[in-house]
Amino acid sequence: MDSLKTPFKGVKDDFKGRLACYKKDWIDTCGSGARILAPTAYIFFASALPVIAFGEQLSRETDGSLSVSETLLSTAICGVIHSIFGGQPLLILGVAEPTIIMYTYLYHFAINSIGKELYLAWAGWVCVWTALLLIILAIFNACTIITRFTRIAGELFGMLITVLFLQEAIKGVVSEFNIPKGENAADEKFKFEWLYTNGLLAIIFSIGVLITALKSRTARSWRYGSGMFRSFIADYGVPLMVVVWTALSYGVPGKVPVGVPRRLFCPLPWESESLYHWTVVKDMGKIPAGYIFAAFIPAVMIAGLYFFDHSVAAQLAQQKEFNLKNPSAYHYDILLLGVMTLICGLLGLPPSNGVLPQSPMHTRSLAVLKRQLIRKKMVKSAKEGMKQQASHSEIYGRMHEVFIEMEGAPSHVADRELANLKEAVLKHEDGDTDGNFDPEKCIDLHLPVRVNEQRVSNLLQSVLVGLAVCVMPMIKMIPTSVLWGYFAYMAIDSLPGNQFWERILLLFVPPGRRFKVIEGFHASFVESVPFKYIFMFTMFQIGYFLMCFGITWIPIAGILFPLPFFLLIAVREHLLPKMFPPHHLQELDASEYEEIIGHSVRTRSLSLTNRELPDGDGNESVPDVSSAEILDEMTTRRGELKHRSVSFNDRQSLNDRHSSFNDRQQLQSQVGPGGSTEA
Amino acid sequence: MDSLKTPFKGVKDDFKGRLACYKKDWIDTCGSGARILAPTAYIFFASALPVIAFGEQLSRETDGSLSVSETLLSTAICGVIHSIFGGQPLLILGVAEPTIIMYTYLYHFAINSIGKELYLAWAGWVCVWTALLLIILAIFNACTIITRFTRIAGELFGMLITVLFLQEAIKGVVSEFNIPKGENAADEKFKFEWLYTNGLLAIIFSIGVLITALKSRTARSWRYGSGMFRSFIADYGVPLMVVVWTALSYGVPGKVPVGVPRRLFCPLPWESESLYHWTVVKDMGKIPAGYIFAAFIPAVMIAGLYFFDHSVAAQLAQQKEFNLKNPSAYHYDILLLGVMTLICGLLGLPPSNGVLPQSPMHTRSLAVLKRQLIRKKMVKSAKEGMKQQASHSEIYGRMHEVFIEMEGAPSHVADRELANLKEAVLKHEDGDTDGNFDPEKCIDLHLPVRVNEQRVSNLLQSVLVGLAVCVMPMIKMIPTSVLWGYFAYMAIDSLPGNQFWERILLLFVPPGRRFKVIEGFHASFVESVPFKYIFMFTMFQIGYFLMCFGITWIPIAGILFPLPFFLLIAVREHLLPKMFPPHHLQELDASEYEEIIGHSVRTRSLSLTNRELPDGDGNESVPDVSSAEILDEMTTRRGELKHRSVSFNDRQSLNDRHSSFNDRQQLQSQVGPGGSTEA
Repeated sequence: MDSLKTPFKGVKDDFKGRLACYKKDWIDTCGSGARILAPTAYIFFASALPVIAFGEQLSRETDGSLSVSETLLSTAICGVIHSIFGGQPLLILGVAEPTIIMYTYLYHFAINSIGKELYLAWAGWVCVWTALLLIILAIFNACTIITRFTRIAGELFGMLITVLFLQEAIKGVVSEFNIPKGENAADEKFKFEWLYTNGLLAIIFSIGVLITALKSRTARSWRYGSGMFRSFIADYGVPLMVVVWTALSYGVPGKVPVGVPRRLFCPLPWESESLYHWTVVKDMGKIPAGYIFAAFIPAVMIAGLYFFDHSVAAQLAQQKEFNLKNPSAYHYDILLLGVMTLICGLLGLPPSNGVLPQSPMHTRSLAVLKRQLIRKKMVKSAKEGMKQQASHSEIYGRMHEVFIEMEGAPSHVADRELANLKEAVLKHEDGDTDGNFDPEKCIDLHLPVRVNEQRVSNLLQSVLVGLAVCVMPMIKMIPTSVLWGYFAYMAIDSLPGNQFWERILLLFVPPGRRFKVIEGFHASFVESVPFKYIFMFTMFQIGYFLMCFGITWIPIAGILFPLPFFLLIAVREHLLPKMFPPHHLQELDASEYEEIIGHSVRTRSLSLTNRELPDGDGNESVPDVSSAEILDEMTTRRGELKHRSVSFNDRQSLNDRHSSFNDRQQLQSQVGPGGSTEA
Repeated sequence: MDSLKTPFKGVKDDFKGRLACYKKDWIDTCGSGARILAPTAYIFFASALPVIAFGEQLSRETDGSLSVSETLLSTAICGVIHSIFGGQPLLILGVAEPTIIMYTYLYHFAINSIGKELYLAWAGWVCVWTALLLIILAIFNACTIITRFTRIAGELFGMLITVLFLQEAIKGVVSEFNIPKGENAADEKFKFEWLYTNGLLAIIFSIGVLITALKSRTARSWRYGSGMFRSFIADYGVPLMVVVWTALSYGVPGKVPVGVPRRLFCPLPWESESLYHWTVVKDMGKIPAGYIFAAFIPAVMIAGLYFFDHSVAAQLAQQKEFNLKNPSAYHYDILLLGVMTLICGLLGLPPSNGVLPQSPMHTRSLAVLKRQLIRKKMVKSAKEGMKQQASHSEIYGRMHEVFIEMEGAPSHVADRELANLKEAVLKHEDGDTDGNFDPEKCIDLHLPVRVNEQRVSNLLQSVLVGLAVCVMPMIKMIPTSVLWGYFAYMAIDSLPGNQFWERILLLFVPPGRRFKVIEGFHASFVESVPFKYIFMFTMFQIGYFLMCFGITWIPIAGILFPLPFFLLIAVREHLLPKMFPPHHLQELDASEYEEIIGHSVRTRSLSLTNRELPDGDGNESVPDVSSAEILDEMTTRRGELKHRSVSFNDRQSLNDRHSSFNDRQQLQSQVGPGGSTEA
């Protein structure tokens, strides 16, 4: 392990790289002005809602020791720190489900040993150890290990989170039929008839939220409604549905006792219970030494999870298709994560880490924004040129200038990136009438993806999350059942694009119906790998998954549930190659980004975007497909860009772009100097 | 009107035509043996369920004067009479929604004048007049008028029924929150908390039935599950869901008082209230003469509705694509409908008439059955031939023989119908190895549609409906809210394929998104008619529809709601041609069967049925697409076969099959000798 011999190398390089563009990270925002608020608001709602849901879950599991205020605060504090001091400002931080699960195990251990009152102090020690481990990992350039987690690990972990969400949703709805722990059973609202009413309302609200949220998610590709309306629903539909169903919950007649339906219960941040956090650090001294050392075991698990989660989130936020200009900072960000974990631990807050799918969502929304800005200026200069009867090469020259000006890129880079656009513009030169040349269309089709890389949107959304703590009285109006529906939504929404799930479904497709799969959008393995191997591989994965899920049910040892995921590296490298022919194994479990798709009827739909249709009146109407819609079709729900473009048979010719070897190399060169390619 | 000069001509011709094949109608069933029970059961469930729902609706509207027992009995009696004495045995009879609406108006009129106890007697007089009118219509060959109802009339009527169903569903669910008329408000189950519980349960059950029924309807094209499983769900899913949700409704805890959730309320047929029906005819003498004559006005409306509904149902049950061999009997069937209406009136039962979509569903299920029977024998004989190393023309000869034997068709007819099959079989002769010749595949692709025309399935299903009266205690277990969900299901399920609805949706598609419509399965008008005219035509139709719907809300004069539909003949012939260019008008409102579709991505999906796919193991798996599934894709939810096959631009070359002129001629020659083509 050469990386051990060069401590601090990764961190130092990352730091230098980011320092060089630090000033630009702040200044670049000015160009976009108030428009930066759109991605800010988008990412704020996308990250605040799960944090609230996880807070409520944590509150139930820890009997109120931690709740929504704490998860919101942690997200806000870590977000602000990261947006100012962090390496990669596109990365979004938040309290995530693994943290909630871990803190639940810690709580169960604590109440059975040192007692509820010392729970947060002991969890503080766990954070101290975790922080130490993360810092050590960063110093010794451990981020290079990330490439050894193949898709199977990501799929299993994603599926585990999905199932845990679903379990939480079901447990939540069932609990609505029962009297909560520690409540006065003699209350009017806990009489059988009202308990039952509460349960029925919970079924209606949770299923209502689930169905409407799932529907609104796909709004961008609806046929109906204007583009702005569809974009709005697609971007803000889920929080909107939470608001709508909360409003509907106030339609319950007045004769129903207060407390039916049940709403979020959490102390306000300015109540005395919440002020305890400032004294957690004092209590840490009261923990017996034995327990301090015992805290090392969960710390190893949490550090492993955070290391994995944080790096993968960072990785997906800077996929190479986003065409980022600023360098990555994997090592440095892990170091900073260690520091933030320490701060959270001392404040008695659950720590935050990089979250999916919000991080790639953030990059994507900034890409859309940047595109709009460049497009507007380019179109303007092209139209001016056309007015002055400039030649097409002159017009292209102006566009080129605009691009250089806005991107600050050297001329030869701009030349390379604008090659397609140039060709398209100049094509019209020879003999064509100007009527046929539409600069808007050319630019729409050939403008390269560019992301507005800056720190302001991340900072603002973190501040907004912090301010959300002040509107706790409003958050408390949300019925708990709405959150159970939201958990179910998160579970189901994460399934499409998970190949493990797609393969499970494939097992239920009888051989005679597989043509339906081939007709649709599908990954290459369906055609290239014999069904026998798909079956074996999927059964193996189901078995492994059930084992992982089973571990989470073990009372306290359940905290070891991340272990099988770490073991997976060894299983994948030594066991699986003995079970499957290497060619097929690579198809089934390549690195995240190398899927290829077979010939499909649906691939045509994207190419239709540049088809012109007469609308009967003889007017041509330009098809209205926003870039966000195309991006939606191209990404999985986790935010990965799908490399599903051409047939498997064409693969060889694309080797330079898609092969597993190249992808790993690419990733490793991003990850930094400790990579094994240099070893 | 020449048809007035030849009274009885249509009826006599129909009668002679059907008499010639009457014996065969009974004997032909023997060949299929017990397999005839499949279409019987299918059509029984499809027709019994709405009859039960309509019975419950009628029971609420008439304060229990008529209920489920009566609608079931009427359906059974009329069904048995029609299956034995009727002209077209493929036609299914039942109490339909228009009858329920009419009987509701009659009831409101009766209670405000002659009193509740004479309601059925007065309704009896309405039936007498209706019967008389129907018989006169039949005698004077009025069925030829049917061709003058264009698609616009069918669409409006369908939409009205849809909206009335939806209104019934909503009214039903709302009523679950209130105490029903005439109940003791002091009952435990009518306390606020239980009323509210009952309402919430109603929301859950009705939406549950709606969603699961809609999902199960499309089971045949699911990717998952074996063909038998999918067929079963598609054929019996809706009644199954009623059973499932009824079973779930018994999961309500025991502490909830009896009567929550509410279940069907209807007197059992052997209780004294039901025995009253035998004396209705005696009460008819007690009706004052003035009221007897007043009964003529609703009778005109009902006769008009029945005449229209019965003929259209018969027409859709014998569309020319079904390739029926026996003659039609439109005139004679209207005569018989008159007789049956009289019988029902005298027994105090609401009359039955031909129903949609059950009638075309019946024909379709018999087509599938017949196909299976012929296919089996043909494959057997072909395989025997292959064993004996017979030449391909010998093999074809054997198939030909089987076809003649089973169809009883003369040889030259068989030759014509099997032309495609012959070509396919002989193609393999020249040099090809026998391994490539698969008789099953050839037959699947080229066997013409044949329907098992007989009377047994209709008779049996009518008898089963009659027997359903005996299981009333079981029917009474169904929660009323399940029926409201079923009403909503019927409403929504009837929308796809209704072009009026499709055009309303089109108004919400912004111009830039219309390419999405063109990409999908769409009717020709989308491409050929300027949007301006589509818009005007649809707005006109919406206005006309709102007028019709508004009339149904007028307390007693609402009974005139069928009038605008009759007026539509004049509007279509004199007003609309002045508003729209004839070419576009014809596209928007051609006769039912002449839609043509533009080039579409989805048209490819049908052709995929004969694509062979390697399934990875190198085995070829034959795509599993049942003929019922293909038929599903080709028919509207009303059961019309969609003539959407090729581009509009190819239309001229297809003139002989698709043009409006030919279609009308075809229909008129089916309808009989009084047709205007002979005039």
